[in-house]
Amino acid sequence: MKSNDKDEKKARKSQLREEIKALREKLLGQQQAIRERKLPIIVLVEGWAAAGKGSLINELISEIDPRFYNVVSPVIVPEREARYPFLYPYATAIPENGKIMFYDSGWMEDCLRKYLRREITKDEYKRRVRAVNEFERQLRDGGYLVLKLFLTISRKEQRERLGALLSNFETQWRVSQEDRWQHSEYKLFEEGYASFMEKTGEIIPWHVLDGSKKAVAARDALKLLTDGIDEALANGRYVGKPFEEDFPLVEMPKLKDVDLSPSISDEDYKEELKRLQKRLGELHNIVYRKKIPVVLCYEGWDAAGKGGNIRRIARPLDPRGFDVMPIASPEPHELARQYLWRFWTRLPRSGHICIFDRTWYGRVMVERLEGFCSEDDWKRAYNEINEFERQLTDWGAVVLKFWIHIDQDTQLQRFNDRQSTPEKQWKLTEEDWRNREKWPQYEQAVDEMLQKTSTENAPWFIIESNDKQYARIRTLKIVIKALEKAIEEKL
Amino acid sequence: MKSNDKDEKKARKSQLREEIKALREKLLGQQQAIRERKLPIIVLVEGWAAAGKGSLINELISEIDPRFYNVVSPVIVPEREARYPFLYPYATAIPENGKIMFYDSGWMEDCLRKYLRREITKDEYKRRVRAVNEFERQLRDGGYLVLKLFLTISRKEQRERLGALLSNFETQWRVSQEDRWQHSEYKLFEEGYASFMEKTGEIIPWHVLDGSKKAVAARDALKLLTDGIDEALANGRYVGKPFEEDFPLVEMPKLKDVDLSPSISDEDYKEELKRLQKRLGELHNIVYRKKIPVVLCYEGWDAAGKGGNIRRIARPLDPRGFDVMPIASPEPHELARQYLWRFWTRLPRSGHICIFDRTWYGRVMVERLEGFCSEDDWKRAYNEINEFERQLTDWGAVVLKFWIHIDQDTQLQRFNDRQSTPEKQWKLTEEDWRNREKWPQYEQAVDEMLQKTSTENAPWFIIESNDKQYARIRTLKIVIKALEKAIEEKL
Repeated sequence: MKSNDKDEKKARKSQLREEIKALREKLLGQQQAIRERKLPIIVLVEGWAAAGKGSLINELISEIDPRFYNVVSPVIVPEREARYPFLYPYATAIPENGKIMFYDSGWMEDCLRKYLRREITKDEYKRRVRAVNEFERQLRDGGYLVLKLFLTISRKEQRERLGALLSNFETQWRVSQEDRWQHSEYKLFEEGYASFMEKTGEIIPWHVLDGSKKAVAARDALKLLTDGIDEALANGRYVGKPFEEDFPLVEMPKLKDVDLSPSISDEDYKEELKRLQKRLGELHNIVYRKKIPVVLCYEGWDAAGKGGNIRRIARPLDPRGFDVMPIASPEPHELARQYLWRFWTRLPRSGHICIFDRTWYGRVMVERLEGFCSEDDWKRAYNEINEFERQLTDWGAVVLKFWIHIDQDTQLQRFNDRQSTPEKQWKLTEEDWRNREKWPQYEQAVDEMLQKTSTENAPWFIIESNDKQYARIRTLKIVIKALEKAIEEKL
Repeated sequence: MKSNDKDEKKARKSQLREEIKALREKLLGQQQAIRERKLPIIVLVEGWAAAGKGSLINELISEIDPRFYNVVSPVIVPEREARYPFLYPYATAIPENGKIMFYDSGWMEDCLRKYLRREITKDEYKRRVRAVNEFERQLRDGGYLVLKLFLTISRKEQRERLGALLSNFETQWRVSQEDRWQHSEYKLFEEGYASFMEKTGEIIPWHVLDGSKKAVAARDALKLLTDGIDEALANGRYVGKPFEEDFPLVEMPKLKDVDLSPSISDEDYKEELKRLQKRLGELHNIVYRKKIPVVLCYEGWDAAGKGGNIRRIARPLDPRGFDVMPIASPEPHELARQYLWRFWTRLPRSGHICIFDRTWYGRVMVERLEGFCSEDDWKRAYNEINEFERQLTDWGAVVLKFWIHIDQDTQLQRFNDRQSTPEKQWKLTEEDWRNREKWPQYEQAVDEMLQKTSTENAPWFIIESNDKQYARIRTLKIVIKALEKAIEEKL
């Protein structure tokens, strides 16, 4: 090497160090604005085994105050042991407002490796790629800054690095069987990564960094991150526009057209209840054994009889295999994240039944009507929720949604009854009366919700509940039928 | 059977049904008071395999509103796969105020089965029994109503029930290998259960119910539960008295006697920092591989340099293997549970390092001084915290606690510096100034804390931080020394 070249190299190196230092300081300066403006940031770092994902993250965080960031390194659960939707570990780890979450590899690796390893079928792979796009778009539309980095190294470089790790007793455990396999199938992965990036680069672009040049990669990543933050801070929190997607919808009647007269005699009720609960208990056994996840969603008018209905479903179930999730107003740590987060974290394991007593549909009812979110937010939610539920049914879940329906007179009767019965008084709040005054607005919102979100895979059922006993029997029958179908379809 | 006997039996049965009905209604009536008075309730249901734990729980919950209770059935993780302290699944599942949590078997089965299976040693078993007593007492003293039920059946009855389950294809999966083994070792378990109950019955008594008489067991359990609730509601929320326990303590100086003059030159600092961080990085690898959990606790005066100190420790660590947990004021869902819950839920997996930026010691500092808990509460906390930390070190964790120490003049200088530097202003709040005014009270509280909680297994280190660089080097050295020791001791 000529001394000229050497000097040049040295100068370049020192310039790079200066640039990195300046960018780190910039990031440090942005911290406070991120916090004040409540900007949530996701940095996904994917890439080849031994490409240096860990050290890149270390470069990025080295100056950030630990209160502002976190790093997750989700373990990829082998498909045969997976008990949650594949996005679960990623969706439950999203940061709260004002914080940065670094994913040390994530949904790309999970999705692609399982496909290349033949743990999932090609169709399943396609569904997951779609889910990834939905997930990323929903985060962006919910105000998240999402930065996706891919660290690349050549096959030769990878061989050298893995070899170096393997030659040292203290570091050889870091090279997993998966890493070896990836190296032996470098070509396959190369095509896989490229294709995955192509399929998922439209909404949130990918940035490919050269892992063989550590300092350059660090500089580039810091630049991308700080530029992204600048832009997000300049434009204000992003709110996605509503959009239309095609979902196979089930036609639903308007609430006002529902005949609420159906009823059942006490005698028939007792007999049917006993028979159906026995059957549901049997089915729960099979569902548990076949590892079918079940999500039952309850919404309905105040005093429509949700609680009693839920109890009749829950009664025959083995308490080891089900949960009732009462959904109240979001807590501060829930409000500080995308609105579906608090439902992701409550999903049942496969084989379990989760009964949601109120659900994510609060977004298009109370949050819409009380102005807790913007118009774009709730309008977008119809599609976002359809996507979320399709991710659940793609996972294999049975998803059923019940609108427990009564008319206004019946509600008034029940309110009055509650008011005059001491042990029921707690069930009636000022808010119930206030909501009652907004019946027409709610009816409109509910009608719209039923029209737009009753998909074939996750349908709504309007349960006539002027006669509560009739409502319980009807719900039991629907659940039983759906479970029987799911059991039959699952080998 | 004589017809007389028959009639009597029938009458008894019908009376039992009436009693159960009445007790259920009573429980239903208590619901609202439980909620209003914010009484948290734990019902632990232990017992023989096939004794009917699940159905008993079902009897208990059948009339309760799903919003008021939850059932957990923690899976017993084989010891070789366990990555958390053994109480972790139970301690993280405690209910919030106003709710009932049913444990469908729990810490008794976990502890005993592993001991009888020789997954843990006799010494470890003893430590766990002690931890169970500590755990239950802490819950009781924190206002929890804890009810412990044990369902018993004879060997003959168990054989019949397991046989019935096994003879049916739909139910045979319910009989696990563990159940078969328990049956074949009935005598061993019988003695084990009796001995466990004897050792853990003093603080919270055990109630043994006859599992062969389902209705009687249900009635008795309902009676115990409703009576317990009556009593708890009548007496008001229980607050445990402080108590003394013997812990091997390390003698600590008073803060005022600490020499804060130590310092380090810039040159030495740079050199030492590089050398020590390199070494810490190497150790982190080994800690990870040997699955040693590490808990580093930071407390200290405002502006003492906690953040910068933490960053220097975090820098060489692999982001896959550590977390920084900033601890702010508790959120509502955290306030609604025993105060250590939010730390249980943040514990690192074994092999990981967790750095707590402020800790559970808030109980005996800010919560004490601001009156966020009662005097009994914070006085009791010294021992409770010592117990908690001993549970961590018994699990194998390295627990180190740092008090980052400066004098008042240095604090004032740094406050002023922050105030006059725009990008540091966010670090300084009104609260910092208010806390500064309470320096003498804090100093007294900190001194008491250091005296009472610097145990040999989880010692405090006062880090002289008037010179921040000196403080960082000192902390690094302490961490390195402790890790080296832990690595050496672990085969």
